[in-house]
Amino acid sequence: MPRELSQEDVRDFRARVGKAAAMLYAEGGEGAITMREIARALGSSPMGLYRYFHDRDEIIAYLRTSAFNKFAQALETAFAAGGDPFARARAVGRAYLDFALENPGDYRLMFDLSQPDEQGNDELANASARATRTVTRHVDDLRAAGIVAGDSKEIGRALWAAAHGVIVLHLAGRLPKDTDVRELYFKTMRLTFRGARTLSSGIASLANPKRSRT
Amino acid sequence: MPRELSQEDVRDFRARVGKAAAMLYAEGGEGAITMREIARALGSSPMGLYRYFHDRDEIIAYLRTSAFNKFAQALETAFAAGGDPFARARAVGRAYLDFALENPGDYRLMFDLSQPDEQGNDELANASARATRTVTRHVDDLRAAGIVAGDSKEIGRALWAAAHGVIVLHLAGRLPKDTDVRELYFKTMRLTFRGARTLSSGIASLANPKRSRT
Repeated sequence: MPRELSQEDVRDFRARVGKAAAMLYAEGGEGAITMREIARALGSSPMGLYRYFHDRDEIIAYLRTSAFNKFAQALETAFAAGGDPFARARAVGRAYLDFALENPGDYRLMFDLSQPDEQGNDELANASARATRTVTRHVDDLRAAGIVAGDSKEIGRALWAAAHGVIVLHLAGRLPKDTDVRELYFKTMRLTFRGARTLSSGIASLANPKRSRT
Repeated sequence: MPRELSQEDVRDFRARVGKAAAMLYAEGGEGAITMREIARALGSSPMGLYRYFHDRDEIIAYLRTSAFNKFAQALETAFAAGGDPFARARAVGRAYLDFALENPGDYRLMFDLSQPDEQGNDELANASARATRTVTRHVDDLRAAGIVAGDSKEIGRALWAAAHGVIVLHLAGRLPKDTDVRELYFKTMRLTFRGARTLSSGIASLANPKRSRT
């Protein structure tokens, strides 16, 4: 009979399973995560895995929950470091890009796929909601300060989508060879953000526009 | 001995292989495209497939070439239908979204993945370059007409990335439930485009800004 598992045993082994699954995902995408391959990577038996996870979907949810929390933590730290709405927006924008470039596997796990029962998994749903809040919270600030006009939720989603587009084109290797991903990211963010600015807050930049000569 | 194949035989069979591979891709992503599964779907033997394609990579390149050409065709048609730079930009933007929503498999094949030797495959490289041109050509027009300021290549890429972000978040099921993908798409495009406009061309919209009361 298998011996009784302590909470620590369970936590440690789940972390090892997560690590192996993340490796498989990085190599071959979602389809590469199978109980058999994880067991092989750990020198365990597939049946042994079922003591720790009900199924493959629970392993993916576990990975995604970790990724969302790690991501939210990075963005919350950036937000807290900014002294005013502009600084917070810049810091969150930069932290978003840095996280994606440094943790492409986590980034894809969060935003490339959905699972059928995300709302049924409290930990995943909470982590995902926390991440979503941190991605757009600084836009509420900007609106409250009269810097952007409009529905801050809509603007936040537009900014998020634009950021995401640059990042996934980069991760997929689809940006033209002469493209610097950081430059394109900040350019795209600047344009979208500038498009959302109010008339009065835009005066300064309008009075001194950076015009191209070409 | 296998009988000699006519050009028509080859073309027809390659098209059938493409169809089967596209179906596998739609169901399980890139990893699901295997010679064995394609052969099974066609009631053929894997060895039989090798008379038509050297390897799996060539099949994927074939699918992607078709997708790029179909996509470019749709955008070129939209571009040609527009009577002025604004109308062309709007038509291309709408055609881009429509194509992605109606052909999600083709859309992913084009922009979700890269192949190691794309430049070595003339047909694929040409189709991809043709698609890239049609995505941003209307921005050159807008700059020539003095409507946007700056480097039209950079602005085109920013607009493209923003459009792509909305679409892939939608395809991955990652947009919040209350989001209408079409609304978010046009909102994102409007903001980014507005951010790129020149001072003078912006006067009209600045004089009559749509301000939110919230």
